[in-house]
Amino acid sequence: MSSAEVAALQAQVEDLTATVAHIQDDELNTFYLMWAGVLVFLMQLGFAMLSAGAVRTKNASNILLKGLLDACLGAIVWYLIGYGFAYDADAQAENSDHTGNSFIGTGPSNFALSGQTKEEGAYGGDWVGWFFQYAFAAAGATIVSGAVAERCQLSAYLIYTVAITGFIYPVIVHWIWDTGGFLCSWNPNPDSRWLTGMVDFAGSGVVHMTGGWAALCAAAILGPRLGRFDETGKAVAGYSGHSLPLAVLGTFLLWGGWYGFNQGSTLGIKDQGQTAARVGVTTTLSAGSAAVTGLYLKYALPAKLGGTKVWDLGHTCNSLLGGLVGITAGCSVVEPYAALVIGFVAAFVYHGASCLMRKMKVDDPLDAFAVHGACGVLGCIVVGLFATKEYTYAFNDDGEAEYGIFYGGSGLLLATQIAGVIMIQIWVVSLSTIMFFILRKAEILRVPMSVEEAGLDASKHGGSAYPEQVPYVVGNA
Amino acid sequence: MSSAEVAALQAQVEDLTATVAHIQDDELNTFYLMWAGVLVFLMQLGFAMLSAGAVRTKNASNILLKGLLDACLGAIVWYLIGYGFAYDADAQAENSDHTGNSFIGTGPSNFALSGQTKEEGAYGGDWVGWFFQYAFAAAGATIVSGAVAERCQLSAYLIYTVAITGFIYPVIVHWIWDTGGFLCSWNPNPDSRWLTGMVDFAGSGVVHMTGGWAALCAAAILGPRLGRFDETGKAVAGYSGHSLPLAVLGTFLLWGGWYGFNQGSTLGIKDQGQTAARVGVTTTLSAGSAAVTGLYLKYALPAKLGGTKVWDLGHTCNSLLGGLVGITAGCSVVEPYAALVIGFVAAFVYHGASCLMRKMKVDDPLDAFAVHGACGVLGCIVVGLFATKEYTYAFNDDGEAEYGIFYGGSGLLLATQIAGVIMIQIWVVSLSTIMFFILRKAEILRVPMSVEEAGLDASKHGGSAYPEQVPYVVGNA
Amino acid sequence: MSSAEVAALQAQVEDLTATVAHIQDDELNTFYLMWAGVLVFLMQLGFAMLSAGAVRTKNASNILLKGLLDACLGAIVWYLIGYGFAYDADAQAENSDHTGNSFIGTGPSNFALSGQTKEEGAYGGDWVGWFFQYAFAAAGATIVSGAVAERCQLSAYLIYTVAITGFIYPVIVHWIWDTGGFLCSWNPNPDSRWLTGMVDFAGSGVVHMTGGWAALCAAAILGPRLGRFDETGKAVAGYSGHSLPLAVLGTFLLWGGWYGFNQGSTLGIKDQGQTAARVGVTTTLSAGSAAVTGLYLKYALPAKLGGTKVWDLGHTCNSLLGGLVGITAGCSVVEPYAALVIGFVAAFVYHGASCLMRKMKVDDPLDAFAVHGACGVLGCIVVGLFATKEYTYAFNDDGEAEYGIFYGGSGLLLATQIAGVIMIQIWVVSLSTIMFFILRKAEILRVPMSVEEAGLDASKHGGSAYPEQVPYVVGNA
Repeated sequence: MSSAEVAALQAQVEDLTATVAHIQDDELNTFYLMWAGVLVFLMQLGFAMLSAGAVRTKNASNILLKGLLDACLGAIVWYLIGYGFAYDADAQAENSDHTGNSFIGTGPSNFALSGQTKEEGAYGGDWVGWFFQYAFAAAGATIVSGAVAERCQLSAYLIYTVAITGFIYPVIVHWIWDTGGFLCSWNPNPDSRWLTGMVDFAGSGVVHMTGGWAALCAAAILGPRLGRFDETGKAVAGYSGHSLPLAVLGTFLLWGGWYGFNQGSTLGIKDQGQTAARVGVTTTLSAGSAAVTGLYLKYALPAKLGGTKVWDLGHTCNSLLGGLVGITAGCSVVEPYAALVIGFVAAFVYHGASCLMRKMKVDDPLDAFAVHGACGVLGCIVVGLFATKEYTYAFNDDGEAEYGIFYGGSGLLLATQIAGVIMIQIWVVSLSTIMFFILRKAEILRVPMSVEEAGLDASKHGGSAYPEQVPYVVGNA
Repeated sequence: MSSAEVAALQAQVEDLTATVAHIQDDELNTFYLMWAGVLVFLMQLGFAMLSAGAVRTKNASNILLKGLLDACLGAIVWYLIGYGFAYDADAQAENSDHTGNSFIGTGPSNFALSGQTKEEGAYGGDWVGWFFQYAFAAAGATIVSGAVAERCQLSAYLIYTVAITGFIYPVIVHWIWDTGGFLCSWNPNPDSRWLTGMVDFAGSGVVHMTGGWAALCAAAILGPRLGRFDETGKAVAGYSGHSLPLAVLGTFLLWGGWYGFNQGSTLGIKDQGQTAARVGVTTTLSAGSAAVTGLYLKYALPAKLGGTKVWDLGHTCNSLLGGLVGITAGCSVVEPYAALVIGFVAAFVYHGASCLMRKMKVDDPLDAFAVHGACGVLGCIVVGLFATKEYTYAFNDDGEAEYGIFYGGSGLLLATQIAGVIMIQIWVVSLSTIMFFILRKAEILRVPMSVEEAGLDASKHGGSAYPEQVPYVVGNA
Repeated sequence: MSSAEVAALQAQVEDLTATVAHIQDDELNTFYLMWAGVLVFLMQLGFAMLSAGAVRTKNASNILLKGLLDACLGAIVWYLIGYGFAYDADAQAENSDHTGNSFIGTGPSNFALSGQTKEEGAYGGDWVGWFFQYAFAAAGATIVSGAVAERCQLSAYLIYTVAITGFIYPVIVHWIWDTGGFLCSWNPNPDSRWLTGMVDFAGSGVVHMTGGWAALCAAAILGPRLGRFDETGKAVAGYSGHSLPLAVLGTFLLWGGWYGFNQGSTLGIKDQGQTAARVGVTTTLSAGSAAVTGLYLKYALPAKLGGTKVWDLGHTCNSLLGGLVGITAGCSVVEPYAALVIGFVAAFVYHGASCLMRKMKVDDPLDAFAVHGACGVLGCIVVGLFATKEYTYAFNDDGEAEYGIFYGGSGLLLATQIAGVIMIQIWVVSLSTIMFFILRKAEILRVPMSVEEAGLDASKHGGSAYPEQVPYVVGNA
C-alpha cells in the first residue's frame, strides 16, 4: 500500500468531512429556516383574518389593509434599519467577535444587510436569518393594530409601525437573542450578561410582550370606541366582531404558523432534531389545554367573574392563543405535562386580564393585551418554575445549569426571568407612552367622530369590504 | 505511512459514518415528519372551514367550535391515553422487541409518552412520531362531527370524541401501523400476522373508514334534522350549507394537507425520496380525476340516479375528497394511471353512497360517510387490484411479494385487504353503535327541538357567527 | 498496517461518498422540491379565493368551480400531454443527451410520464419534478379565468384550459427551462441557444406572461360584461367584487405560496442554500415595496391619472401581486435594494396597465393582464438592467458572464430578455387569438345575456354560493 494511496484517501476523507458540514450548515439548516419562516409568515395572514373577523363590518377593509401593510412595511423597515439594531454586523458569522455592544446592534453598519457576511454561515447566513426574523418582526406591530382597531388614523398607524419594527422591537431582540446581548442566555461572556441571561426561546417576551404592552399603551391613550362603555362604565353590546368563521380561520392559521415560530427557533435542525420535535409536543399541548380550559371557564364562572353560561367560540380562540403565547418562552425547556399546566394557567391569565381591561375601560377590540401582553409575562415567568435541568440552556457565571425552582433550581433563573420581564416592560411602556402621547397631541392618532360613526371603510377606503351587502348591515355607531 | 496515521483515518471515517447516519435519522427524517405533520394539522383547519360552509348560518359557530375542539381535545386525549393504546412503549426504538401484543398497544406504560425512548430513533423519536400521529388522530373524530352537525349536544360530542381518539381509533392504528400489529404488513413475524398484513399506507382504512363508519352509526342513531325529509321520504330543500367559499377553502386546504398525510406516511425521507415523490403524483391524479368525474356525473346522470343538470360545486368538492380518500391506502403501491382510474371510480362510489344515504333517510350533512366511509373501503380494496409487484410491501409467509390481481397477483393481498376492511367495520360499528345508543338512552345525544329550530348558535353559543347579519338571514327551521 | 485494512477503508469511504451524494440528490433535493411544490399548490387556493372575492356574489360559485377545476383538470392534462411537450423524455437524467429538439419536448415518448427515468436523478427524478411543475402549469390557465370571469361558458373554459396547460404553456417551458431549449440560459450548447438564453428564474415570462397575455386576448375577444361601460365609454360602478376579506386571503396565500414558486425554482437545496435564501429576501422586498407604492399611488395621483383619494385595499393587493410577478424572473440575480426598486416600478406598471385596459374598454375583472401580463414583461426586462455579475447565470458563446447594463454589462443579456419577451408574446397572442376567435365563432365562448344578468350561479350551478343570503343581495345586472 503506497503512501500516495493513503494520502489520496486522506484527501478524500477531508473533502467528505467538508461536504457533510456543508450539508448540515448550508443546506439543511437553511432549508429548515426557510420552512419555518414561511410558516411564521403565514401568521401574518392569520392575524389579518382574526382581526377582520373581530371588528365590525364597517371597519373590515381598514383592518385588512393594516394587516397587509404590517407585512409590507415591516419588510422594508426591517431591511433598512430594524435588523441592524437587532443584530451585530457579523452576528451570523461562525466566530463573531460582536463589534456592537450588549444593548443595541451595530446599527448603520448593518443597515440594509450591509454587514452581511458573504460566506455561508452556521445558520445559512444572514439571508435566511433575515427572512426568518422578518416574519417575527412584523408580528410585533400587528399585535398593536388589533388594540387600536376601528378608530386609529392610518398616519398614526404608519408612524408607530415604523417605530416598533424599526427600533423598539429590534433593541429587545438584541438584548435577548443576539449572543452579545446583556439578557441573552446564549451570551458566553458573563461580564456582559445579566445573571443567567433570559430563557425566551421563541419570544413570549421578545415578541408577544413587546406587542402586547405597546398595545396596552396605545389602547389606553387612544381611548375606547364611541359608545363602548355606558355612563355606568359597563361594556355595551353590539361591538363584537362581524365574522366568527374569519376569526377561527385566523386562529387556526396562527396555531399552524406557531409551529414555525417555536420549532424554527432552534434556528436549524443540525443536532436539534429532538429539541425541535419536543417543542412541537409542548406547543400543541399548551394550546389544547388553554382552549379547553378557557371554554369551560367562560361557561362555568359566576357572572360577576365574567362567566356567561354559553360556550363562547371567540373566547376559546383567544384562550388558545394565550396558551400558545404562554408556552413560547419555555417550549424547549419544559416537559409535556408542564405544557398542559401552562396552558391551563394561561386560560385564567387571559380571562383575568381581559376582564380587568374592560373594568378599567380600556377598549382593546382584539384583546391584544390580554392574549399577548399578559400571557407573554406568564410565559417568561413559568420558565423559572418549570425549566428542567436536562433541557435548560441557562447557566450561572460558574457555568452551572440553572433551572426551575419546582425542580429544586436555585431561583437565579427565575430572578433573571423576572428582571427580563421588567426590563421589557420599562422599555416598551416608556417609549410607547411617549410615542402615542405625541401622536395624540399632534391630533393624528384618532379619526374624527363622524368618520368613526360611519365606519372607516366608507370614509377612507372607498366603501364596504362587502360592497353588495352594505345596505343590509346594521351599523352599530 | 505510519500505522498511527491510518488509525487516525479509520477513526475519522468512523465519526463521519456516525454523522451521516445522524443527519439522515435524526435531522432529515425528523424535519421531514415535522413538515408533514404541520400539513396534516392544517387539515383540521380544512375540516373546520368545510364543515362551517356546509351547515346553515344558525349553526356555524357550533360546528366551528367542534372543529377547534377536535384539535385541542384530540391533543390532550392522544397524549394521555390514545398514543399508548396505538403504539408499544418501545415502538419507535430501532430494535423494538414489542412488549405489547398484536391487538393493542402497551397502554398505561406508554400513556403520556411515558414509554418514550429518550435516545434518538430511526424516525426522529417518539416526539415527532407523536406529533405526526396526533394530527391523524384528530381527523378521525372530526369526520364524525360532520355527520351529526346541527343537532348533536356538546356533551355527547365530548364523550364520543374522547372515546374515538382515546380508544377506538388507536386500537386500529396498532393493528395496522404498529409493526407488532396483527394486520400490519410491516410486521416481520408471520406468526403474529394475518396473511400478508394490510397495505393501508396512509389510512384509507385506519383513519377514513374509522371516522366514516362511526359517522354512519352516529347519524343513523341520532336521526335526521327536523324536517329534513317530508312525509313521502324525499329530501327537502333548504338544508344546504350557507357558504360555498368556505367549503372550497376547506376542500383546498384538505387537499394541500393531504400531501403531508400521504407523503408523510413514508415516516421519513431517508431512502424514501422516490416513494414520497411518487405518492405526490398518485395523490394529485386521483383527486383531479375524481373531481372532474363527479362534476360530470352529477350533471349528466338521469334525475332518478341523482343527476341535476347543474354544475354542482359542492358535489365536486366532495368527489375530490372521495378521490383523495380512495388513493390514500394505495398511494405508494399503484401506478399513476391507476390513480386516475381509482379517482374515477371514487366519484361513482361517493355519489352512490350519498344517494343511498338519502334514500335510507340517514341525514349526514357533510356526506361524511359517503366520502370517508365508502371511499375508504374502496381505497383498501383497490390495493388488492392495482398494487404492483415493484412497489408492494406485502409479503406472504414465505417472504414472496404479494400484489394486485390485475398484475397476476395470487389474490392473497386482496383477501387480506377485504379481511382488514371487515375487521375495521366490525370494531368500529359495534363500539360506535353501543356508544351512541347509550348516549341516546341517556338523553344527552340530541338537542331539544326548540334549540334545533332556533339554531345552536343562538341557544348555546351566545348568538350568531355573523352577529351583524342575523336579522337578515332566513332561518330554515 | 496491512493493505487489506487500507482497502477496507477505501471501500468504506467509497460507500460514504455514495451515501452523501444520495442524501443530497435523492433525499434533500426531493424533500425540498416537495415542500416548494406544496406551497405552489396552495397558490391555486390563493387564486381561487382572490377570484371569488373579486367577482359579484351571483358568480362566486362559478369562479370557485373554475379555480378548483384548474387544479384538477390541470393535473390530468399536465400528466397526459403537457409535461411531454415541456420536457424531453430523459431531461431529468443526470447526463441527458436531449433526444428532443430546442423548440418542443419529445412529446408522445414522454406523455403520461412514460419517458420517466426510473433511476434517482439529480432533481429527485421525474416524480417530484412533475409535481413541482404541475403546480406551475395550473397557474397559467388560472390567470385567464380571472379575465373572463362572470361571462364565459364552462365549455369554452374547459377547451382553453386544456389548450393552455397541454400545449401553449408547455412549449414555452421547453424553450426556457428545459436545458435543451433555444431560450434556456442553462442550455450548455451555444449552437442550439439564442444569444445568452433567457434568465427567467421562476417564470415572470414563462408562467405570468403566458397567463397574462392569453388573458388579454380572451378578455378582448370576449367583450366586457353587460353594462360595464356606459355610452361615453366610462367604467360604471357596481362591478367590484363582493368580498375583500376573500381577496386579502387570496393575496396572502399567493404571497406565501410564492416562496415555493421562487425559492423552489433552485430545483434543489444542494449547493443552493445561499441562493434560495437570498431569493426569499428579494421576493419579500419587492412585494412590500410594490404594495406600499401602489397604495400611495392610487391615493395621491390626480383623478385623471386614476387617483381616487382613498386608501384602496383591492388596488394594494394587486400592486403587491404585481411586485411579486416583477421579481420572479430576476429573484436570484438581483441585489435586495434592486428588489425594492423593481417593486416600486411594478406598482406603476400595474396601475398604468390597469388604467389602459379600462380606457381601451377591455374588461378584465381581476386585472389579470395588468398584474401578470404587464408586470411579467417588466420582470423579464429588469433582469437585463439589474442582474449582477456575481449572481447572473447567463453566458455568451465564449462562456463569459453577461449581466445587467446598470453594472456595465454588454447589453447582450438585455437583448436576449427582450427577444424572449417578444417570442413569448408572438406565441401566446397568436395561438390565443386564433383559439378564442374560433370559440366565439362557434358560439360557445359567452353565456347568453339572460344568464349573465341572472348570474351564472343561479343559472348553471343550482343557486347562490351563499344560499341563505340570496334574497338580500342586490344584483348588479
